[in-house]
Amino acid sequence: MQNLKGFRDFFPEDMSARTHVFDAWRTVAQRFGFVEYDGPPLELLELYTRKSGQEIVEQLYTFSDKGGREVALRPEMTPTLARMMAARVTTLPKPIKWFSIPQLFRYERNQRGRLREHFQLNVDIVGAAEVEADAELLAVALSVQLELGLGQDDVVARVNDRRIVAGALGILKVPDENVAAVYAVIDKFRKIPTEKFTALLNDAGVPTDSVPELTRLCNGSVAIFDWFAPHLASIDETTRKAVADLERYLGLMKEQGLSELVEVDFSIVRGLAYYTGIVFELYDRKGKERAICGGGRYDDLIASLGGPEMPALGFGMGDVVLSLILRDRGLMPAAPPRADVVVIPVGAELAAAARQVTYDLRRDKVRAETPYSPAGVGKDLKTATQHKIPYAVIVGPDEWEAQEFNLKNLSTGEQSRVPVGELADKIRASE
Amino acid sequence: MQNLKGFRDFFPEDMSARTHVFDAWRTVAQRFGFVEYDGPPLELLELYTRKSGQEIVEQLYTFSDKGGREVALRPEMTPTLARMMAARVTTLPKPIKWFSIPQLFRYERNQRGRLREHFQLNVDIVGAAEVEADAELLAVALSVQLELGLGQDDVVARVNDRRIVAGALGILKVPDENVAAVYAVIDKFRKIPTEKFTALLNDAGVPTDSVPELTRLCNGSVAIFDWFAPHLASIDETTRKAVADLERYLGLMKEQGLSELVEVDFSIVRGLAYYTGIVFELYDRKGKERAICGGGRYDDLIASLGGPEMPALGFGMGDVVLSLILRDRGLMPAAPPRADVVVIPVGAELAAAARQVTYDLRRDKVRAETPYSPAGVGKDLKTATQHKIPYAVIVGPDEWEAQEFNLKNLSTGEQSRVPVGELADKIRASE
Repeated sequence: MQNLKGFRDFFPEDMSARTHVFDAWRTVAQRFGFVEYDGPPLELLELYTRKSGQEIVEQLYTFSDKGGREVALRPEMTPTLARMMAARVTTLPKPIKWFSIPQLFRYERNQRGRLREHFQLNVDIVGAAEVEADAELLAVALSVQLELGLGQDDVVARVNDRRIVAGALGILKVPDENVAAVYAVIDKFRKIPTEKFTALLNDAGVPTDSVPELTRLCNGSVAIFDWFAPHLASIDETTRKAVADLERYLGLMKEQGLSELVEVDFSIVRGLAYYTGIVFELYDRKGKERAICGGGRYDDLIASLGGPEMPALGFGMGDVVLSLILRDRGLMPAAPPRADVVVIPVGAELAAAARQVTYDLRRDKVRAETPYSPAGVGKDLKTATQHKIPYAVIVGPDEWEAQEFNLKNLSTGEQSRVPVGELADKIRASE
Repeated sequence: MQNLKGFRDFFPEDMSARTHVFDAWRTVAQRFGFVEYDGPPLELLELYTRKSGQEIVEQLYTFSDKGGREVALRPEMTPTLARMMAARVTTLPKPIKWFSIPQLFRYERNQRGRLREHFQLNVDIVGAAEVEADAELLAVALSVQLELGLGQDDVVARVNDRRIVAGALGILKVPDENVAAVYAVIDKFRKIPTEKFTALLNDAGVPTDSVPELTRLCNGSVAIFDWFAPHLASIDETTRKAVADLERYLGLMKEQGLSELVEVDFSIVRGLAYYTGIVFELYDRKGKERAICGGGRYDDLIASLGGPEMPALGFGMGDVVLSLILRDRGLMPAAPPRADVVVIPVGAELAAAARQVTYDLRRDKVRAETPYSPAGVGKDLKTATQHKIPYAVIVGPDEWEAQEFNLKNLSTGEQSRVPVGELADKIRASE
């Protein structure tokens, strides 16, 4: 029997790697004052089609359950968040700061090596309009990288503001009805050659005169703040505020010592239509163009899903790309051994004594085991080495009598005599 | 929009309770030397029908995916475990000790208040024929109860051995072809009145003379060991070994100080056909007859699923009944606050100073936050109280100058002046 294509088995060594990433996600989100929630992996299909339309059904695991309900395995967490929020958003004190680590599912055809499930850290702030919230959100995403050992040479956050792009397109005289199409082209900037890019801009309705300037904005040969400077007096309030917000945002990242991990990038617009302000994507500096994480502000989303008007922002960070980068940098720790110590009796008549030592160690919260049927000290030591258990306690008749045992380090071979009451501390100290 | 009937939303306070149980599960399993694994929540339908036949499909969430595969949401973990083991069981050093915490799914009709998903701790030992392994398995299940604060007045493990039941049915002259039907009746013993029980035994093919004696075995008015004593010379080797194993098993539970949590109960046979030896179920002593946990030895299962001959045993412990009992006993802790401390500036001009203190506290691994837009000390303290945050650091101009801040305990109102370098330790010490 095989597992389903695109679905992962987590053998203990894989699970250990997954736990390493999850632990960093939880630790950092909690350090910033976020609390964990979860929803069901199966939801009514309508939760997804209502906002995203029927086309999303193509990519969903969807079916009719035995009660005739149209249901789907969750492809993203935001609709569940919005559904859960709807019940409480008006009564909960603001800002609401929640995170979750759902497993998400997409049926994607014909994608070599592409998974059909992944885990994703979702971090959201609801009820905060301040740019300080945007800065905190990005700081969470970046602090996860630092927690895992990645630094400014490894990852970069590319940040932008949807309102700035809208303002620039206004200045560049892109007709309103073409703006959505132009966003879609800008979103492809890093994935296609420049010639192709400029051709697509033309096709999308950017005036021919404006194409070179828009291209320069995207490739960074003109900085956003420099480019807007001569226009600041004449542009609308929204754009002017967006430019000021982005400057303040960068200042807040600097305050936190995270500047070297952040770059302004006009080509970051995020594919999804629901973003309304600052947006960001995290990338591997050395790798191909696969995002580690993406998010931003979506102030209209909760209202559009039937809730009240409520500023909100959030990001999603998947486990797959992040884990690839950690492995690439040698930052994924090996799986820990299943126990800290094995207790080995010298002869079967001491098996009960060895079990007693094992029970006592467990009571002292040491991960301990003893052979179910002792096979002799040599063989039992060999088994312990196969399991990569770092320590052995050898229980001989004299040691049992004296309640003082030989503690053997199985990698160095060192051995020392330790009173029973000190065993737990000794083993823990050397971890 | 609603969630699906039978599926739970985990709001932060629910998630905190779930995490409390999961943490106990993980801690105890690891203390006994078990390592965590996981499989996909979606598997090929055949994985379940192969062993359990088509009737299980009734209770499954099953559908055809877009590639035409018949798939199912996992209703139990053992088939996934057996599938994963098949790839490695011959090469891994024995005993293999694995645990997992899957979410499982069953479509059950017409069951009031019955959930369609739950989480289940699965603990399995593969490659160990010794009764010491059986005893360790039960010790894990019971140690979880102790870890969560439950004791001998709260829970009881009822233990038995399928071979003993088979032996007794032989002595009581139940024809071989009726044994399966009699198991099914014995399994109902605690759920039906005695009259009904004896009637069903008759119907199932127990000789009329034997019905009273079988009933006395089930209700415990005769102890298993006493009942078998006169037969020991004449019964088959398997039954004799089973009786000896059960005695040894009880001795091993006593060694671990767990005797008061264990009772022999002839009526425990476990519904599933695949158990081959010692079996057990955990019950709430005060509650109704809903099992917290069930498991036992299933030496034939891995071979029957296409693997090699391999002794194995395991249990499953759901989160729903266990959580109900913890709540009933007042043992489910309240959700922790989202942060340990809020840093509040005296006036907006000190907001940047407050942020700096916040960043430093986070660097020292304290869960800290500061208002995105300070609203004045009084209002910000009120918000912190709403969020149940236990401490506030007040950042005034003199304090910022002196780098010494007022640390306020928000439940007692006590306040003390603390140098910036000692804040983190002070807050952590009082947790």
